[in-house]
Amino acid sequence: MNYSILYKDTLLKDILPFWERYSIDTQYGGYFTCLDRNGKVYDTDKFIWLQGRQAWTFSMLYNRVEKNPKWLEIAKSGVDFLRNYGRDTEGNFYFSVTQKGEPLVQPYNIFSDCFAAMAFSQYAIATNDDEIKELAKTTYFNILQRIDNPKGKYEKNTSTRPLVGFSLPMILSNLVLELEGVLSSEEVNKTIDYSVNQVMEIFLDKKTGLVFENVQPDGSHDNSFNGRLLNPGHGIEAMWFMIDIGVRKRDSKLINRATETILRILEHSWDKDYGGIFYFMDASGYPLQQLEWDQKLWWVHLETLVALAKAYEHTQKDEVFNWYKKVHDYSWSHFSDAENGEWFGYLNRQGEVLLNLKGGKWKGCFHVPRAMFQCWKSFEKIEANIQKNKLND
Amino acid sequence: MNYSILYKDTLLKDILPFWERYSIDTQYGGYFTCLDRNGKVYDTDKFIWLQGRQAWTFSMLYNRVEKNPKWLEIAKSGVDFLRNYGRDTEGNFYFSVTQKGEPLVQPYNIFSDCFAAMAFSQYAIATNDDEIKELAKTTYFNILQRIDNPKGKYEKNTSTRPLVGFSLPMILSNLVLELEGVLSSEEVNKTIDYSVNQVMEIFLDKKTGLVFENVQPDGSHDNSFNGRLLNPGHGIEAMWFMIDIGVRKRDSKLINRATETILRILEHSWDKDYGGIFYFMDASGYPLQQLEWDQKLWWVHLETLVALAKAYEHTQKDEVFNWYKKVHDYSWSHFSDAENGEWFGYLNRQGEVLLNLKGGKWKGCFHVPRAMFQCWKSFEKIEANIQKNKLND
Repeated sequence: MNYSILYKDTLLKDILPFWERYSIDTQYGGYFTCLDRNGKVYDTDKFIWLQGRQAWTFSMLYNRVEKNPKWLEIAKSGVDFLRNYGRDTEGNFYFSVTQKGEPLVQPYNIFSDCFAAMAFSQYAIATNDDEIKELAKTTYFNILQRIDNPKGKYEKNTSTRPLVGFSLPMILSNLVLELEGVLSSEEVNKTIDYSVNQVMEIFLDKKTGLVFENVQPDGSHDNSFNGRLLNPGHGIEAMWFMIDIGVRKRDSKLINRATETILRILEHSWDKDYGGIFYFMDASGYPLQQLEWDQKLWWVHLETLVALAKAYEHTQKDEVFNWYKKVHDYSWSHFSDAENGEWFGYLNRQGEVLLNLKGGKWKGCFHVPRAMFQCWKSFEKIEANIQKNKLND
Repeated sequence: MNYSILYKDTLLKDILPFWERYSIDTQYGGYFTCLDRNGKVYDTDKFIWLQGRQAWTFSMLYNRVEKNPKWLEIAKSGVDFLRNYGRDTEGNFYFSVTQKGEPLVQPYNIFSDCFAAMAFSQYAIATNDDEIKELAKTTYFNILQRIDNPKGKYEKNTSTRPLVGFSLPMILSNLVLELEGVLSSEEVNKTIDYSVNQVMEIFLDKKTGLVFENVQPDGSHDNSFNGRLLNPGHGIEAMWFMIDIGVRKRDSKLINRATETILRILEHSWDKDYGGIFYFMDASGYPLQQLEWDQKLWWVHLETLVALAKAYEHTQKDEVFNWYKKVHDYSWSHFSDAENGEWFGYLNRQGEVLLNLKGGKWKGCFHVPRAMFQCWKSFEKIEANIQKNKLND
């Protein structure tokens, strides 16, 4: 099979048309993300994560695929909405707002700011707009300022058990590359070093080879629900961020360690009974607090496809490609909706559709198109390489 | 089948021995609630809801079943733990603490206070201890003071969409009867009137006959995720609180309306494919935010058994008994663990065990023993009534 064409065609002829057709709010700007199986809007609330992520997606594709003015217009709609309605008076981004932009849920969650910064940065590259560039920078430094207490007054945990979470260092390792255009190279290198160290030395456990979701600041483990928690999709996603950094730094050791970690997490979290990757696991095998632990989520599988494609592109190991094939077959046969386009988001353990939606509070125009783009580009290189080797034979 | 004996025997010979044997922390006081299928402790954190609920259960059984000194000692252990480690300096109850009692999660959740108040009140009845009686009263009035902003500074919702939640008025309708011994009858009657009005006029929707989890303060509906949310178990549980109040007030109209509502909710939320009652539903049939929506939870089914037993006790309607039989057969064949005792808590939609535990963050020594006790007592009356009718024939 020609994978690069599959991913390219799906991105350009299925995924993007779906969001172009159904998600645009022509009245108030920004995007609807609560779309049912057919693309019909079933709720009009706007979740800031997803506003930022969709604005980023269309800006990124404009920058890296095609200077399509329609894509830029769609990106602008989200960027304007975020600028006008996304922030409180202190410049922190809300979690959600109404269709018109009235604040609904306070800025308790710093990832709203991360995805807004990504959107501003890509849009600034597309338009060369200095004001937006400045906004990307301000948002980024505001995130760094909040890094030790990202939830602010909404933090419910006391200081009794000072665990640190994986999400923020993980996101930073991707965000900083997204913001290369607006940050000094000194700042970029500093944050890369910080996040690689956090991900590979603090959160990646030497003994088990698994990435823990919460650890003590020195990386040691805490025998509690949060301390035992594994989020396989997060761990695997972070590894393709590490491969990107490895490529940038020409650090083949980092690429190899990331590749090994992907395989290790997959072996540990693949559901041997029904296929697919578990959403959450407990490192000691104890019962979890997350009732949704055994479900199969779209983003987990798409991030794994990206990670395996990149790992194969750079290592050419058969073991990596065998896993790629396995995850590919599961994902494309279970998540892709041939009838109505786009991908389902949530399957039960058995692989049946659990929520009949294409978008909601957490699923928007992001993981599917980003993975399609990343896999397309990786397979283009993989296939060109195979072609070259054939010619050399 | 003699149901009263089934419930009595299960309570006294299976459920209580399980918690007596495995849950007592003889070192630091209070209870372990994270117990695996065999009763082994897999986590030592103490969740204040469950500390209060277990102290209540053993106090209540001491008061209403048997003056068993062992039960009183178990109750005392939890009451002492709550007094010593449960509260912050302002008298608000934490959500969770460590095994030793160090605070872990702040008092963002007022239900900790509700279950502590219930425990103090029952324990005060058992011991006639004035200090504990006073503590029950103080805790109750602190809850009333916080009623308009129960989450305090941890409230993440803005005032844009002022929805009110069902849980608090629902709990109050039960809590106030639990606190009859320590409150003035004026206070009791005021809170009964308030909560009956809230439950039956504000949250119970006249048009659909369903109880909504979140409504606008005047009871009108909001077309949003929270505004469309149904929690069938909550609605049904509240109806047996209404029946208790109906009995107390000799209000047969209230008992009949509660009975009709139980049947209506059951018809709407029974899973016609796999049996059991859904955990969450969307009133418009849209996709939910709750990924666990289709799971079958122990407490939902136990509260339904109590509600149907009470409804049948007071109305003797065949339709009620037919539903009772259906829920009984599903519940006893799916949740009860004949091999290791007690009940499983979480099943997937298909009715298979999802989490192999007897207790955790939310499941403790409460719903199972309370339902066993309530059903035992209801069926004693139902069976005595049948016997009487036979003799009169």
